[in-house]
Amino acid sequence: MFPDIIMEADLTREIPVRTKKRNELVDITAAIQELIDESGVSEGICHIFVPHTTAAVTINEKADPAVATDISNTLEKIVPAGWEYRHAEGNSDSHVKSSLVGASEFVIITGGQPLLGTWQAVFFCEFDGPRSRHCVVRITGD
Amino acid sequence: MFPDIIMEADLTREIPVRTKKRNELVDITAAIQELIDESGVSEGICHIFVPHTTAAVTINEKADPAVATDISNTLEKIVPAGWEYRHAEGNSDSHVKSSLVGASEFVIITGGQPLLGTWQAVFFCEFDGPRSRHCVVRITGD
Amino acid sequence: MFPDIIMEADLTREIPVRTKKRNELVDITAAIQELIDESGVSEGICHIFVPHTTAAVTINEKADPAVATDISNTLEKIVPAGWEYRHAEGNSDSHVKSSLVGASEFVIITGGQPLLGTWQAVFFCEFDGPRSRHCVVRITGD
Repeated sequence: MFPDIIMEADLTREIPVRTKKRNELVDITAAIQELIDESGVSEGICHIFVPHTTAAVTINEKADPAVATDISNTLEKIVPAGWEYRHAEGNSDSHVKSSLVGASEFVIITGGQPLLGTWQAVFFCEFDGPRSRHCVVRITGD
Repeated sequence: MFPDIIMEADLTREIPVRTKKRNELVDITAAIQELIDESGVSEGICHIFVPHTTAAVTINEKADPAVATDISNTLEKIVPAGWEYRHAEGNSDSHVKSSLVGASEFVIITGGQPLLGTWQAVFFCEFDGPRSRHCVVRITGD
Repeated sequence: MFPDIIMEADLTREIPVRTKKRNELVDITAAIQELIDESGVSEGICHIFVPHTTAAVTINEKADPAVATDISNTLEKIVPAGWEYRHAEGNSDSHVKSSLVGASEFVIITGGQPLLGTWQAVFFCEFDGPRSRHCVVRITGD
């Protein structure tokens, strides 16, 4: 799902994500781990940013894939696509979901590893797919 | 809307924001760009923090102003001001909205520019206006 | 509520949090202040991360404890535990709340102090307690 990780600037990288549904959570932890390895940073911060207005990034459970589905489905119940909105593109719910979940998230790096809990993974959240998307990652530290 | 950008400490700056409605999203991207320019930072992170408990910061679409209105209105539908709350100041919904959207957000800086998507802007979110507010910005990098 | 702050790595620390209810916000500002003092950092960023998938971190009002209760109760109204979910552990609502509020938050440090608004405190958000939990804190700066 992440065909090529593209170099953007010295320390900023892109993770391409191809989504397949309108609402979908895609686990990008492996790509983040790869970028941390490549950076050689042992102690620092991994900043993850989504440059799209109908997508987001979150950290949640990977062990049972039903959790990611529950998050997608429940966001759809909280912010139904069918409500009345002013924006005429039919994706106002996607914009609201994006602001609720958020465009930025960070992970602490320690011992060269992302400090995630046992059950945690980093997910790209698609709210207006299927589309070709990407995340931007900047790693700071030493 | 940002009359004077005030120097707070060496690298921490304030962006004043005057809001005009109870619920309103104010685009502060120009002020952030100005602070990045002033900082001279080429590669780094711009940290944006809202020191208020009934406001927040989000990144979303600027192209169609209807999106910002949809976000405000939809948050009001999700967390109605008219629900029963314990806090007696009549702004409990504002506090909940603040925690849903969040007090902190960061933007990656690359090539001296905030790395935002084509449609993205940074918005100060007012949930209990009109008021005189501010955002705090700290830029790190080199 | 924070019996021992544990050293994890050079600059990464844990704040233990013992929660007493299923849904509860615990003020961890004093522990964060202590870690900033210990770090000796005068100008920087305090990164706060929750390594749990049914908990979160938020910044909101401390003056009236009714606000924290309103946030907990209102999140329960927005994402009821009784809705139908796929994940079979009975805590899908907790996972959704975790993604809505978010696992990471930062505070700007200036003059050796966390730059918080007058009414702001940092809260650990429990959504599936009571449990023994922790926050991870990494302080960067000089």
